[in-house]
Amino acid sequence: MADNGISRRRLIGTAGATGLALGAAGGAVGYAAAPSDAAADSAGSKAQLASLGADQVMFHGKHQPGITTPLQSRGHLIAFDLASGAGRKEAAALLRRWSATAERLMAGESADGGDTAVARDAGPSSLSVTFGFGASFFSRTGLEKQRPSALDPLPDFSSDHLDKARSNGDLWVQIGANDPLVAFHALRAIQKEAAGTARVRWQMNGFNRSPGATARPMTTRNLMGQVDGTNNPKPSEKDFDKRIFVPSDGDPSWMAGGSYVVVRRIRMLLDDWEELGTKAQEAVIGRHKSDGSPLTGGTETTEPKLDETGPDGKVVIAANAHARITRPDQNGGAAMLRRPFSYHDGFDGKGEPDAGLLFVCWQADPMRGFVPVQRKLDRGDALSEFIRHEASGLFAVPGGAGKGEYVGQRLLEG
Amino acid sequence: MADNGISRRRLIGTAGATGLALGAAGGAVGYAAAPSDAAADSAGSKAQLASLGADQVMFHGKHQPGITTPLQSRGHLIAFDLASGAGRKEAAALLRRWSATAERLMAGESADGGDTAVARDAGPSSLSVTFGFGASFFSRTGLEKQRPSALDPLPDFSSDHLDKARSNGDLWVQIGANDPLVAFHALRAIQKEAAGTARVRWQMNGFNRSPGATARPMTTRNLMGQVDGTNNPKPSEKDFDKRIFVPSDGDPSWMAGGSYVVVRRIRMLLDDWEELGTKAQEAVIGRHKSDGSPLTGGTETTEPKLDETGPDGKVVIAANAHARITRPDQNGGAAMLRRPFSYHDGFDGKGEPDAGLLFVCWQADPMRGFVPVQRKLDRGDALSEFIRHEASGLFAVPGGAGKGEYVGQRLLEG
Repeated sequence: MADNGISRRRLIGTAGATGLALGAAGGAVGYAAAPSDAAADSAGSKAQLASLGADQVMFHGKHQPGITTPLQSRGHLIAFDLASGAGRKEAAALLRRWSATAERLMAGESADGGDTAVARDAGPSSLSVTFGFGASFFSRTGLEKQRPSALDPLPDFSSDHLDKARSNGDLWVQIGANDPLVAFHALRAIQKEAAGTARVRWQMNGFNRSPGATARPMTTRNLMGQVDGTNNPKPSEKDFDKRIFVPSDGDPSWMAGGSYVVVRRIRMLLDDWEELGTKAQEAVIGRHKSDGSPLTGGTETTEPKLDETGPDGKVVIAANAHARITRPDQNGGAAMLRRPFSYHDGFDGKGEPDAGLLFVCWQADPMRGFVPVQRKLDRGDALSEFIRHEASGLFAVPGGAGKGEYVGQRLLEG
Repeated sequence: MADNGISRRRLIGTAGATGLALGAAGGAVGYAAAPSDAAADSAGSKAQLASLGADQVMFHGKHQPGITTPLQSRGHLIAFDLASGAGRKEAAALLRRWSATAERLMAGESADGGDTAVARDAGPSSLSVTFGFGASFFSRTGLEKQRPSALDPLPDFSSDHLDKARSNGDLWVQIGANDPLVAFHALRAIQKEAAGTARVRWQMNGFNRSPGATARPMTTRNLMGQVDGTNNPKPSEKDFDKRIFVPSDGDPSWMAGGSYVVVRRIRMLLDDWEELGTKAQEAVIGRHKSDGSPLTGGTETTEPKLDETGPDGKVVIAANAHARITRPDQNGGAAMLRRPFSYHDGFDGKGEPDAGLLFVCWQADPMRGFVPVQRKLDRGDALSEFIRHEASGLFAVPGGAGKGEYVGQRLLEG
């Protein structure tokens, strides 16, 4: 503990062992209802303290956190480029520092070496920190032979409007948490650890629904108002691991248990979209806006009847409807796990919102996950005139670190 | 209801009457734990449905919402300028539309005239929408005689680095909610209502701690890691109303029950600040970082002993310590209610975070609230070299609308 006073670990007490969810700590927190009192240890009830710690995501494991971890309400994506002069050795030291910091912060502890105290009073808040390597990392560190062929550049798509300065990068970090201060605290700690070794190439902030804001757990909505994520593969499905993670005997071997992530900053042209009106929007998507059910009826999880025709003899779900084009069984069984954040960076000079989706998708092989789906969308998706891909990244995310190991160690010391 | 399907009102059921807090709806929400099911009405337990609605802020009242409302975790500040050709009549129609929309959305209902559905499945999430008028509004609408002298321009401060394009404006709207999608939904609805009458001049996004992230309600922290808001006046204090709100016989009469808000985008130079280390930071502030207690001891709410000297014979709380300069009893009893959001708009070209505080403070008279405190800070605050005021706004926020009334009606139809 670099700081004096109450540690975050002490504050959260015997956390982690209970089944209580974060939300149960409850109570609207704000200055008006908040008589200040430094006696945190005595003021918080045992149930409150325990419930905070229950919301801890594990750092160690077969896979890194932040892939099958439930969506958090706040997210930061950051890409770094190695500083000139920094090579394999410096990168290894950085990943070692980063891993130690991620483990501490995810447990609700302070960062080493001068904690900023921004997250001091909070529990873990479902913090997850995930690390990845971009294609350029391998040439800069003399590790070309270890570079996975899965990191070959993504093909160009005709609808891309990519800003190179906000695309790719040597290293990538994804931070998610259900408290904005906990997320920001982690972001600063990660950035400070990089000082001298890597500098920020780009950084994006995103958000999702807050836990407890809806009456029941449900598929999230995006800023177009659509239920988004209906067809995501579920960890309970038998092919899930095979589709999302590199197998234990995969190639290269240092990627065992890892996954490849495609990150796209997809701006939504919301003024145009909202002008359409609900009926026309539903035709573009092929689903009802209210509940995500297919236009051919049922509930969100009902299979769309792709051949069903209406009174006019035309198919109810149009040939270019987004839901038809993205259906897994229309794409050779390809599957990716989409785990996005929405973003909103204010309004541009024309008064239009700079808002949309930080699309983050996970797969064992981008050429069988993202690429074939995006190719089909690129050719004939009715949604494409309402969105614009403005940045793109592809990163190799190694498997989770074992105890005493750091993320990427099998690559950097292999 | 402009949309078909389940209305937000139906979803939240008999909300509002219960004492349950939002957090109790509980459960981490995310795709992994979220088997989709459109049967919302049956799937949500009664307790869950009720708890969502409990988190409703009232639109009608003596004062507008968003002033004494507990801090929400997500906030949007937007300034609008009237379009050319728009005058008093058009402004009145806009405030009427805005008020109706604010009332509906704060109750968890849809917006009229094409709801975007972004907030569809959520409860009110403590949404508050607050409206204000800038000095320029009165000349553009021929209402010069109604312009409060309290809207006279703020004096220049030597440490200001103000961007005029992001300062002031004819109209100002503050949106706060505990769910980011509910907040964004309101922002879009408010912006769309303005089409043809006013255009966005500037817009800023902010955040605070999420409800439930700390073990007990407590004073918030800012991005410097400081406990921030300790000396805020409390609504239970006898002078609170007099200091924060314009009295019922105040001048001008249309401002009865209203308040004046000063908005400053205060960038924090976090790289410099964090380099200081905890001890030096505590000397700058005059309080301990761990719990906000004065350097002279006690808890957060203990009075600082301003005359106490240390072994070196110097005062423990330095002459230029922030806590000394901002103490209300050092400022002739002036008081303002600070109700800020933190902001983080990524990193600038130098790799430094564009982050800090959306300082929002409320008072019956800015010349007795914000101005004298800022004058003292401007002259000798040790904190000033670590912050930069980058934008500034001053707005007259009228009293709350009664039933059947809209905000500002007493001005616009007076």
